[in-house]
Amino acid sequence: MAAYRIRPADAADCAELLRLIRGLAEYEKLLDQVSADEAALRDSLFGARPAAQALLLEADGRCVGFAVYFRNYSTFRGRHGLYLEDLFVEPEHRGRGYGLALLRAVAAQAVAEGCARMEWSVLDWNAPSIAFYQRCGAKALDDWTIFRLDGEALQAFGGS
Amino acid sequence: MAAYRIRPADAADCAELLRLIRGLAEYEKLLDQVSADEAALRDSLFGARPAAQALLLEADGRCVGFAVYFRNYSTFRGRHGLYLEDLFVEPEHRGRGYGLALLRAVAAQAVAEGCARMEWSVLDWNAPSIAFYQRCGAKALDDWTIFRLDGEALQAFGGS
Repeated sequence: MAAYRIRPADAADCAELLRLIRGLAEYEKLLDQVSADEAALRDSLFGARPAAQALLLEADGRCVGFAVYFRNYSTFRGRHGLYLEDLFVEPEHRGRGYGLALLRAVAAQAVAEGCARMEWSVLDWNAPSIAFYQRCGAKALDDWTIFRLDGEALQAFGGS
Repeated sequence: MAAYRIRPADAADCAELLRLIRGLAEYEKLLDQVSADEAALRDSLFGARPAAQALLLEADGRCVGFAVYFRNYSTFRGRHGLYLEDLFVEPEHRGRGYGLALLRAVAAQAVAEGCARMEWSVLDWNAPSIAFYQRCGAKALDDWTIFRLDGEALQAFGGS
């Protein structure tokens, strides 16, 4: 494994984070869904009430990967877990164990916090990632489907 | 719709909450996965750092339904959303609009917080709930699969 280091991101990293988020979205063919800008990241991740934690992986003197996670909750367990929202390593830096290192860093945080579990979601066509996650011991929750209410539908349903 | 009220749960409601959580687990055929007790709920929901918010629905002078939700995060949006972990109405109290009222209460909270979206997960065999959610304007994210790392696999992967 090449030399690298993983560190928590801070407010000075928003430009780098945004660049990597856009790189992930491009890989997922979802670039049209990215509306975040540096100000939104600064406010939501490093403001008065951070909504998530971000890790950056540095190698060759620059940021080449990141992970973002937040606390979720299980009523069945009566305790919080960690949800890994994003994990990304730039394509030209893959195959060096960086993705594994980032995933393990979040898992280590989950263990340190006494979490019962750690979860994340994967696009079904992303076979390389699915195989990677299975090798790490994760199991697919094949009998669950995620539902989303957003945009005008959310306003119509939840607005007063 | 029958007379009812929805209110935030507080620490004095842990026994009722646990009873309803166990009712939900029984409905989902997952009762063996419930390890929460009143103390764990009190600590995780009403302690120094609440991991989630709980709503109770009262009708006929007692609690007959609940919802639990927490903040999640979208890097693509650069802002938090709400994730509905649980929504449950006791079987003998269904068909009165209580589930709709609870779902709408969480959606209203999402709108009030300026969230871009609200999400939750449904067991694939739960056709009545899926039809209900679709009528509310929600869309199934059919191309995503949830992965979970827990128990010994999490300890082995994330432990030092």
